[in-house]
Amino acid sequence: MTSNLSKNHIKLITSLNQKKFRVQHQLFVVEGVKGIQEFLNSSFELHLLFSTEALFNAEMITVTEKELQKISTLKSANTAVAIFKIPNDNKLNSQGLTLALDDVRDPGNLGTIIRLCDWFGIKNLVCSKATVDCYNSKVVQATMGSLTRVHINYVDLETYINTAEKAVFGTFMDGHSIYKETLPDSGIIVMGNEANGISTAIEKLVTKRLSIPRFGALKATESLNVATATAIVLSEFRRV
Amino acid sequence: MTSNLSKNHIKLITSLNQKKFRVQHQLFVVEGVKGIQEFLNSSFELHLLFSTEALFNAEMITVTEKELQKISTLKSANTAVAIFKIPNDNKLNSQGLTLALDDVRDPGNLGTIIRLCDWFGIKNLVCSKATVDCYNSKVVQATMGSLTRVHINYVDLETYINTAEKAVFGTFMDGHSIYKETLPDSGIIVMGNEANGISTAIEKLVTKRLSIPRFGALKATESLNVATATAIVLSEFRRV
Repeated sequence: MTSNLSKNHIKLITSLNQKKFRVQHQLFVVEGVKGIQEFLNSSFELHLLFSTEALFNAEMITVTEKELQKISTLKSANTAVAIFKIPNDNKLNSQGLTLALDDVRDPGNLGTIIRLCDWFGIKNLVCSKATVDCYNSKVVQATMGSLTRVHINYVDLETYINTAEKAVFGTFMDGHSIYKETLPDSGIIVMGNEANGISTAIEKLVTKRLSIPRFGALKATESLNVATATAIVLSEFRRV
Repeated sequence: MTSNLSKNHIKLITSLNQKKFRVQHQLFVVEGVKGIQEFLNSSFELHLLFSTEALFNAEMITVTEKELQKISTLKSANTAVAIFKIPNDNKLNSQGLTLALDDVRDPGNLGTIIRLCDWFGIKNLVCSKATVDCYNSKVVQATMGSLTRVHINYVDLETYINTAEKAVFGTFMDGHSIYKETLPDSGIIVMGNEANGISTAIEKLVTKRLSIPRFGALKATESLNVATATAIVLSEFRRV
């Protein structure tokens, strides 16, 4: 019996762990039944599907559990691995609220932020070129399918903000309390890098400096994690 | 030249990766200069300090970089590893707001939640017995020193809530919008497990069912991550 999983398949999937091959092939990997189902139900186009069970309404390549483990990036592979095409409709929609990420580096943080955009109905996420790739498998895993519902563009953030001509919000230790500001339903909200916050170049473009007040008695807590800060900021923009 | 790092040191530090040995020895590990400094400046008692450089105002055992890497749990060890004593003052303070975790399992989530408690001035965190140990090295790492400022107790959550006789808040999909409720500065806020939310037994004790409204057009986003949900809930309780 010959295997359905070819050496070329393994080579392709393994290569997609690296951004340069994702860019070259315009493909990325999704793992797990639930995640794959969400991508199949979306506008994303399937390239190849490998599964130990016929659970999907799509053409698939049957693999053994051992083979699946070979192509999985997870410690314990989860029934199926799929390859989807990276969409090439880079339409930048600037209506309503846009979240802009200035060099967010951690895949888990980006995944969580994409889920937050989905929850709070933020359709447009723009990322600086140095922000972690949203098709990184750890990001895809962390988004829990939200990646299918949020439009993500990688841009030169300075040029993007300059061209957009919209109000630009950023959080800083010395900003105005976000609890006391009237926040609009249109504009660009910038969140910064995990270690350095918003970069100097982008800070210059911020038109409204906000802050999330700290309630601890000591001023020892240095900062909130970027994902939890984003949660609070988006909640404040959306709450009625 | 004999090394200052003994086999017994290595054995002890390695054993502290496991909860049962942390409980047995009543010790836990902190890595990195900044984190260790925060614990040294707190009421936590130092047991042993290993460092490649004399950066601390404390008795230390000088180690080489190679030795440090041997006792570190990090991919690249960071100048120093310290062992501190687990405090045994289990005073349960029930004044003001208490955050109660009902089986939060992910160390990163617990670390982030401890930072949030610190930021929002929540002094008391109670955790169900099945919640991940706050002296787990990944939790300690993720708290960025906030662990020194938040009192954490592991309790039988059902008994604790029953005995406390306070208002109990929990978030559910069908709860009242948290944006429209007047929230007090005293009571117990329960956050649930990553996969299953608040358990049935604890849900019965919730006196006020809240929800974080979802703004996405589709109801496809299933839930917020427990750490981001905690961020929004604590922000709502504290905002003026």
